[in-house]
Amino acid sequence: MNPVLIEVLRGAAVESRHAGALAIVDASGHVHTALGDVDRPIFPRSAVKLLQALPLVASGATDAFQLTDAELSIACASHSGEPEHVATAAGMLAKLGLDADALECGTQWPGREPVLRAMAARGEVATPLHNNCSGKHSGFVCVACVMARNAGTHPAEFARGYVAAAHPVMREVTAALSATTGIDAERAPRGIDGCSIPTFALPLRALALAFARCGTGQGLSDANARAARRLRRAVAAAPFMVGGTDRFDTRVMEAFGEQLFCKIGAEGVYCAALPELGLGVALKIDDGAARAAEAAFAAVAQWLLKTEAPVLRDYSHAVLRNWRGTEVGALRPAFTLS
Amino acid sequence: MNPVLIEVLRGAAVESRHAGALAIVDASGHVHTALGDVDRPIFPRSAVKLLQALPLVASGATDAFQLTDAELSIACASHSGEPEHVATAAGMLAKLGLDADALECGTQWPGREPVLRAMAARGEVATPLHNNCSGKHSGFVCVACVMARNAGTHPAEFARGYVAAAHPVMREVTAALSATTGIDAERAPRGIDGCSIPTFALPLRALALAFARCGTGQGLSDANARAARRLRRAVAAAPFMVGGTDRFDTRVMEAFGEQLFCKIGAEGVYCAALPELGLGVALKIDDGAARAAEAAFAAVAQWLLKTEAPVLRDYSHAVLRNWRGTEVGALRPAFTLS
Repeated sequence: MNPVLIEVLRGAAVESRHAGALAIVDASGHVHTALGDVDRPIFPRSAVKLLQALPLVASGATDAFQLTDAELSIACASHSGEPEHVATAAGMLAKLGLDADALECGTQWPGREPVLRAMAARGEVATPLHNNCSGKHSGFVCVACVMARNAGTHPAEFARGYVAAAHPVMREVTAALSATTGIDAERAPRGIDGCSIPTFALPLRALALAFARCGTGQGLSDANARAARRLRRAVAAAPFMVGGTDRFDTRVMEAFGEQLFCKIGAEGVYCAALPELGLGVALKIDDGAARAAEAAFAAVAQWLLKTEAPVLRDYSHAVLRNWRGTEVGALRPAFTLS
Repeated sequence: MNPVLIEVLRGAAVESRHAGALAIVDASGHVHTALGDVDRPIFPRSAVKLLQALPLVASGATDAFQLTDAELSIACASHSGEPEHVATAAGMLAKLGLDADALECGTQWPGREPVLRAMAARGEVATPLHNNCSGKHSGFVCVACVMARNAGTHPAEFARGYVAAAHPVMREVTAALSATTGIDAERAPRGIDGCSIPTFALPLRALALAFARCGTGQGLSDANARAARRLRRAVAAAPFMVGGTDRFDTRVMEAFGEQLFCKIGAEGVYCAALPELGLGVALKIDDGAARAAEAAFAAVAQWLLKTEAPVLRDYSHAVLRNWRGTEVGALRPAFTLS
């Protein structure tokens, strides 16, 4: 059993508990800190979108289509489906002469309730562009178009089916995961992600290593090192695109800029790079709770960066309010790091 | 640590795990089955709405205001804020000459997304009537009005502040909890619930006992035994009111009628009465996950009722699909009962 990382208080009593594991690793693979089982494979889900976006830069697609910071940031995003996100993803596809029909992520209403209500009030309906992964998928389609051009084939036809593990685009994405984590993802346990691409189960230790490498460039090919740096800078320059209004990832990167790249994944996963410290972080909440993943990472970041930044404390010790706005409880870390 | 009750699979691999505890107890207090720590107090939240509604019948309010099955059912509900729910709660208040201003549960948009979108599309905004607890609170206001009449005071003035622990209405509600669980709730750890009333931490063993008593009438005063029977029958006759479209509680009670009363509570709590078996069930998922509470209770009900009913299997082995509708995983019970 992994240790309890986050407790949920109601009044003075602990109401719920979230166990999990976390790894902090440097770019040479040295384990700086580990709690719980960091060698058991876990599905990293959307927490590795930075790694999955490396081919977008390394393939030359970023230069070929003159992708902006906002476009590169949304390629690493699990966004809230706000109008700016939808417009940015649509703009990427327009550069390719394509539209939402090219996306294979499925249709999802915006995750942010006020955005969803505003859409409904305008009589709009959700499209694949509103899917939280639409930017990542637009990036995949960009890679497909560059590959098609190099192969002299029709871009839209080449792109079709890009979510399949055997498609050339997805093989590049999987190769980027293998190169950064040091583990052959093709041989790892495989599942299908929420957006229909494969997700590979990898140990937290290897995921943390991948992010340490992406933060420092150490242990990566020149192409991947440059791509990681370009993507991190883009997200730091356009942090709204990676999440959205009141989203943890966005707020943290607005506050810390290039000091910190961080990304949540479904089912309680969190990955981050801290380039100045040369460290990568990966954690998984056993039960899959996002509130605990954010709180646990906020506590880790407070400790590593030796900061009292309010945005981190807002999440590590999140205040819980009821429907009348009355304070009814709080989250608190149940682990200490030293 | 409590045992893992529910596993979440992605492909063939376990992605997430939910630990918890459960108690099955008969009306004499004999523990039929226990897994995990059933003596640690837990906040039962909305899982005890049946117990909290006992004074609505026992006070005479049900007769005084000629409350219907639908109205009694919604008094035990965590409903999805659908138009029928809103109209039913509003109708209860109208019988008192009151409206939504009398409710102190706070404003909540409907929990069911299509309902929320339809409201927004009609240009409507949420009110306290849409709060999942609006029926329970309308019931509290009914009790207040009967008390006011008996005391010869103004009903709306008497009702004001009914959510406070010291208010005469809430003292009756707390007394019903104490009488059914056999534990003095006034001395139990106290928190504030999502709808602003107090919630008292009580052991699963005592909560299961309370539901065994409510299913059989054994160990209760005549007034509470009659009230429990009246409420169970009302919910069985109007199960839509206790939840709503595609809600587990509603679907189960549609299928099983008076064989089974069951109710979810926030933070992974589930309570149920099985009158024909003379048993009560109470369970809590440590991390607070509703998906696991429903799955675990579905597995318990399958075992106790020796049934293959599809509605239970739909939840105990729920299939998980992604945004394109592709099957990506499933829940499964990780415990066996014997």
